[in-house]
Amino acid sequence: MKRKIQASIHSKKNEIIQLLRSFVQAESTQGNERYAQTLVIETLQEMGLDVDVWEPDGAELKGHRYFASSREEFTGSPNVVGVMKGKGGGRSIILNGHIDVVPAGDKTQWTDHPFSGIVKEGKMFGRGVTDMKGGNVALLLAMQAIQAAGIELKGDVIFQSVIEEESGGCGTLATLLRGYKADAAIIPEPTNMKFFPKQQGSMWFKMHIKGLSAHGGTRYAGVSAIEKSLVVVEHIRELERVRNARITDPLYKNIPIPIPINIGKIYGGEWPSSVPDIVTIEGRFGVSPEETIDEAKKEMKQWIEALPEADAWFSEHPPTLEWFGARWLPGSLEPEHAFMKLLSEKYEDVTGREATIEASPWGTDGGLLTEIGQIPTIVFGPGVTEKAHFPNEYIMLEDIFTCAEIIAETIIDWCEVSK
Amino acid sequence: MKRKIQASIHSKKNEIIQLLRSFVQAESTQGNERYAQTLVIETLQEMGLDVDVWEPDGAELKGHRYFASSREEFTGSPNVVGVMKGKGGGRSIILNGHIDVVPAGDKTQWTDHPFSGIVKEGKMFGRGVTDMKGGNVALLLAMQAIQAAGIELKGDVIFQSVIEEESGGCGTLATLLRGYKADAAIIPEPTNMKFFPKQQGSMWFKMHIKGLSAHGGTRYAGVSAIEKSLVVVEHIRELERVRNARITDPLYKNIPIPIPINIGKIYGGEWPSSVPDIVTIEGRFGVSPEETIDEAKKEMKQWIEALPEADAWFSEHPPTLEWFGARWLPGSLEPEHAFMKLLSEKYEDVTGREATIEASPWGTDGGLLTEIGQIPTIVFGPGVTEKAHFPNEYIMLEDIFTCAEIIAETIIDWCEVSK
Repeated sequence: MKRKIQASIHSKKNEIIQLLRSFVQAESTQGNERYAQTLVIETLQEMGLDVDVWEPDGAELKGHRYFASSREEFTGSPNVVGVMKGKGGGRSIILNGHIDVVPAGDKTQWTDHPFSGIVKEGKMFGRGVTDMKGGNVALLLAMQAIQAAGIELKGDVIFQSVIEEESGGCGTLATLLRGYKADAAIIPEPTNMKFFPKQQGSMWFKMHIKGLSAHGGTRYAGVSAIEKSLVVVEHIRELERVRNARITDPLYKNIPIPIPINIGKIYGGEWPSSVPDIVTIEGRFGVSPEETIDEAKKEMKQWIEALPEADAWFSEHPPTLEWFGARWLPGSLEPEHAFMKLLSEKYEDVTGREATIEASPWGTDGGLLTEIGQIPTIVFGPGVTEKAHFPNEYIMLEDIFTCAEIIAETIIDWCEVSK
Repeated sequence: MKRKIQASIHSKKNEIIQLLRSFVQAESTQGNERYAQTLVIETLQEMGLDVDVWEPDGAELKGHRYFASSREEFTGSPNVVGVMKGKGGGRSIILNGHIDVVPAGDKTQWTDHPFSGIVKEGKMFGRGVTDMKGGNVALLLAMQAIQAAGIELKGDVIFQSVIEEESGGCGTLATLLRGYKADAAIIPEPTNMKFFPKQQGSMWFKMHIKGLSAHGGTRYAGVSAIEKSLVVVEHIRELERVRNARITDPLYKNIPIPIPINIGKIYGGEWPSSVPDIVTIEGRFGVSPEETIDEAKKEMKQWIEALPEADAWFSEHPPTLEWFGARWLPGSLEPEHAFMKLLSEKYEDVTGREATIEASPWGTDGGLLTEIGQIPTIVFGPGVTEKAHFPNEYIMLEDIFTCAEIIAETIIDWCEVSK
């Protein structure tokens, strides 16, 4: 059976590379997922699966306590689920991957077009190839290999191509509200083939920092909100140091900043000749699997309230703090769980190397699957962690095939062979 | 004659306050000057002046070496000039004021609506009231008082209500290209009733500061363009210190920062969860009357090229530096010029106090009038310097009337009475 899986993966390599390139070229940034999802639907239909396609209902979602998104309207942004029905009596599994990708960023930092899908020396390049379309095609390949090997399973295999992971996970939230559950889940986010049974949560914040306007020629009569925002950025950097000094979980031992606070955007001022009176910063606040979202929010709030100690200006002009848009719940599965054991056995079996088990440096939809669905979830995928959201993002193609084999073998054991 | 001028100014106070309020309420930010200019045209026509109204020709202007603007199309943004023709044989004078105002900024910092024109305790409030519509109505009032006193002059009095002063002066440039010249000029910018025979020049710059994108969860793998922009802002602050330490002209002795470098805008980053790879800052660079625009540009360029000494990152990733949009030439008239002497005599005569002569903390259209038109120009007006571009911008109404009297008396002596 193992050899059949290997053979069918080998025979499908070129086809999968073509599929991955077409996924990348589909440029599925937020709001533009429809075309990429059409390619997913075609693939699932060719595989003979039951395909469920729907645009999540913003009105329903936004009432949910775990709703987080920068938008409330999902027309043109469908979720896609394909179910490979089992014969009954086995454990089910969810294979979850997101189709949305972050923007390309400064295009001048890319060697090729950001959505080229070009292949060089065994790597494919393009925005989203590592985060996480390479993982998605690994899932599809694993299922195709099981089919090609003529294997029928007892448990259901539920493939999900979801929107909105990069903005807070309401694509996966919508699958849960639609009733999709399983006995375990794999999310092949770019982990460098490591296993992340614990995932860092995160959430977005926005702050308005005030100054006092004046003509630039008499700038000494005003207070620059840009200069004050520098104080706020440094103050937040200090909170990051304090929070990370507390992290002792050995799963984080190789991660320089286990729960980073990233300032991702800044904007303020209206006129080069005026002293800017308001600057806005937006960022991402990492949440440890050992704390709740509310505890993390409270610590940030108290820290910002201490700003007047750094600069008396803030006592009369406190910055605002708002949690908005995206949020990813932290997720946690004990490393001794049977599903984790099975996956790492299969990893060692296929690669001949010992599995690396760590905590993830970012939030994933795994937090929603465990928190709402009570689904034991492992994040494990072929993408290159360091290249996610990076110019010249790439994936090692060979890792996709290795990952597919590990996942196929895991599915076969987990869901059990029917005949 | 002096008493006639005083009496007619006194009789017109309420009318002038109404006119000023209507100017303020016209909200003449860049691109929205038309309605305010309609009010100017009506006033000039009631005064019986020859009125010249035209939309500057962007195609013609942009070829001029002193063209500077954030736009090249002026449809809907007319210039207005009204000429009170003299009988001949006297010196002419230009009375120049700009109709454009900077945006209101953060509206929450205003007590009343930013364009209310409300009057409280002798002050009128509103964006543009001090910079410089209060000055404009002082000019109109001075001319009306001369008319009401039955005085006919030998020299021409040329009133100009120009666009674009806040964006580089191409409204005044257009008056020069249309042929308007005179033997002297007054620009009643908000000087706190001080005289500015020297005006600081200034110009706008834009810099792109590079980082390296990464996922916010592994932000240690990227380089934040926001953090690098903080280094650039501090580096520019140091250049400001160096440049200002060189200023020894006694006209600047009461000005904390004679030639400031103001960072007025900042923007960068696309996604809260990504490390930002590019941040842009825009600012205003003060130019001393003792240096040329080109010398100032060269010093800034060399200073920015030294950034790698502050942070090695910049040796491989130098920020870009671009001069764009607005620019105001420095202007300079020797304080001993006859026109300066006449104005300060009239000031002392009307107020009983000694005139204060300083260098201006900002550029005005005076640089264009002196550089292109060779017109001796004094900046002197009733507005409150500190409130220009500020929330709760206001003007002391009584200063408008005092200023109008000084200007009327100056015009009468400069242009000479015909009968």
